[in-house]
Amino acid sequence: MSSKIAVIGYGVVGSGTVELFETNKEQIVKGIGRDVEIKYILDLKDFPDSPYADKMIKDFNIILNDPEVEVVAEVVGGATFAYNYTKALLENGKSVVTSNKELVARKGAELLRIAKEHNCNYLFEASVGGGIPIIRPIYKCLAGNKIEEIAGILNGTTNFILTKMIREQMSFEDALKLAQENGYAEADPTADVEGIDACRKICILGSLAYGRQIDPDKIHCSGISRIKMEDVEYADVAGYVIKLVGVVRETEDGKVSAMVSPRFVDKKHMFSHVDDVYNAICVKGNGVGDAVFYGRGAGKLPTASAVVGDIIDALKHKGTHIGVSWAESEADMLLSRAEEESSVYVRVKGSNSDSIENMKSAFSSMFGKLIFLERANRPDNELAFITPKMKEKEIDNNLTILSHTVSIESKIRIL
Amino acid sequence: MSSKIAVIGYGVVGSGTVELFETNKEQIVKGIGRDVEIKYILDLKDFPDSPYADKMIKDFNIILNDPEVEVVAEVVGGATFAYNYTKALLENGKSVVTSNKELVARKGAELLRIAKEHNCNYLFEASVGGGIPIIRPIYKCLAGNKIEEIAGILNGTTNFILTKMIREQMSFEDALKLAQENGYAEADPTADVEGIDACRKICILGSLAYGRQIDPDKIHCSGISRIKMEDVEYADVAGYVIKLVGVVRETEDGKVSAMVSPRFVDKKHMFSHVDDVYNAICVKGNGVGDAVFYGRGAGKLPTASAVVGDIIDALKHKGTHIGVSWAESEADMLLSRAEEESSVYVRVKGSNSDSIENMKSAFSSMFGKLIFLERANRPDNELAFITPKMKEKEIDNNLTILSHTVSIESKIRIL
Repeated sequence: MSSKIAVIGYGVVGSGTVELFETNKEQIVKGIGRDVEIKYILDLKDFPDSPYADKMIKDFNIILNDPEVEVVAEVVGGATFAYNYTKALLENGKSVVTSNKELVARKGAELLRIAKEHNCNYLFEASVGGGIPIIRPIYKCLAGNKIEEIAGILNGTTNFILTKMIREQMSFEDALKLAQENGYAEADPTADVEGIDACRKICILGSLAYGRQIDPDKIHCSGISRIKMEDVEYADVAGYVIKLVGVVRETEDGKVSAMVSPRFVDKKHMFSHVDDVYNAICVKGNGVGDAVFYGRGAGKLPTASAVVGDIIDALKHKGTHIGVSWAESEADMLLSRAEEESSVYVRVKGSNSDSIENMKSAFSSMFGKLIFLERANRPDNELAFITPKMKEKEIDNNLTILSHTVSIESKIRIL
Repeated sequence: MSSKIAVIGYGVVGSGTVELFETNKEQIVKGIGRDVEIKYILDLKDFPDSPYADKMIKDFNIILNDPEVEVVAEVVGGATFAYNYTKALLENGKSVVTSNKELVARKGAELLRIAKEHNCNYLFEASVGGGIPIIRPIYKCLAGNKIEEIAGILNGTTNFILTKMIREQMSFEDALKLAQENGYAEADPTADVEGIDACRKICILGSLAYGRQIDPDKIHCSGISRIKMEDVEYADVAGYVIKLVGVVRETEDGKVSAMVSPRFVDKKHMFSHVDDVYNAICVKGNGVGDAVFYGRGAGKLPTASAVVGDIIDALKHKGTHIGVSWAESEADMLLSRAEEESSVYVRVKGSNSDSIENMKSAFSSMFGKLIFLERANRPDNELAFITPKMKEKEIDNNLTILSHTVSIESKIRIL
């Protein structure tokens, strides 16, 4: 008997999933050991000229109630319809695979529990890193490790923009425009440039590694829209590049620290070589040491690669829950940002050159030993420095005091 | 009921496996959902002072005949005892996990078939790339891809030696000695420096990707012991570094091309940044594009990380074959080396400077357009050049003709 699958959402990832599946169908069927067929493609739009027009439907219930459908790819995105669909499918014992990071980040614990209760699977390899294998490597290959930290360049759009700013001295605004022209950024780029997309991804990785749902709304997240060329230049002269980095780790007392923010990345660090739309994720385990995963973090076929891989795995595990899950979040499980320890780059502007030069020693007495930075054509009333590592609440306090006399232009953490 | 496991071989990897398992036991038990215990450690040596002395045994049949033992880690190496042990265990329905690349490369098809026939598993994540997740990502996460090529820096010892030659201008002999002092190379370094270890690994990756056993004895394999500082210098000036690279791909007519050899790697290629004992593997698929996996390719705990991950997976799949397998090798499946197309760096020495300079045009008329290379203090009787891409049999023919008048000192392929 042939196994049937359905695809919900015929946008970029959905059409890529159908295309890749059909291109490699012979090999896929051989691997699974039985015939497989895409039976339905659900989308509210019409695609009369598509070669798959005969599979197109608009009524979700057809998929839900068709006992032949074993696996559904939810690639429609968002956390409303997608949530209702996914829940209903899992409750009907149909496995769901997805690229929907928002839904996994928000509702992963619940949906994974439902999958377990109904002996089916909720798989989400495509939700982080596009086609880069990362989810399964963490919960399978690295299962023997205590995961000490996961850090990653998780958003291709922002990495493309930063690469243009660093390598071609483009302003943020111009680089964003170029990203939009190339199809790397959406018309409303907020989710990418403000770090929201990366935030969802680091929450998924952290939830997986530490077994408890990390709510994206509860962790600190800042994006790259306020980064100026001045910051790029100071970073460069000091031996750094600026990257948007997500970091999640477990503290010694069992709390989870998670954050997305721009970072000064040492030019010797491998992340400094990750350019354009590429992603890289470094998983630090107490056995493996550092394992790094690198590739195109988004795009039609790379993301489809992960979706199709999950479809195959779900088909192979028909009637068996694979065993990936995490618990609901707990109160007080997160380290508050104020308690994080960071070393921070700060750029300030004074009203005139005298005020700045005279303040150097006052700054140092507040923060401790500062590293003052230079750049070509530094205005006399501008000063940039890197603080020692200290609690962020102390940094915040100091910056509040500074802000009475100078303007705080930038604050970027050091990785 | 508690699940029992056994470890065969208490050397570097075996002791690391026990150590990592015991360190992370609480988390491992939680993940599996039932109690797990190392019941036996088999080694011919005595370890009276080990905290695990009470688990030490010397008789393999105790493990084979104990119905409580579900999973056995074979980390003894070699293809004789290990083969007999593994076969007997799988035939008894016990899963075997291993770091033994020699055995997987030689006997993988047979052992995987036996595992399938007895509803157990033969897992070998640790056989390639140490702790770097690579085997499972290929057959699970990338299962929806047609794998176009896999290339890798697969041997940490040779990469350490080459790094020292490139960055510190050490001779091969001095760098090897340093590797031995650091415990990165064995007293008899043949398997590493002659590429035999990397060859086994590329055969495993190719067998997995292309579904047929690739016999390490049947593919071209050359190591790094004949690489001289002169070659490193020419590479550097021309914008390359020399790395030992394994490559496997499927040709358009369905043959498998597999080879291990030193390569000129462009300094812009990510492999050029992979230094010291690190490994990197690039998998090119028709969906994912390039996915790169990077980390420590050997060592006690990194390799143990992969072994323990496989132990956990085997325990979770008790009574179910996971479905990884490949067929026995077929006659004529391999592209012969003579039919490979390569661009090659060649260094020759003539009896005097006249003979060399006069030959430049003769060389070019044989090979086509050559790129002649320079290095500081090039002797007058030395010449180095890069050929256009051509069949290796043509290159061989040309070099045979050249060898009547000049001495062929080096021949290194361009990646």
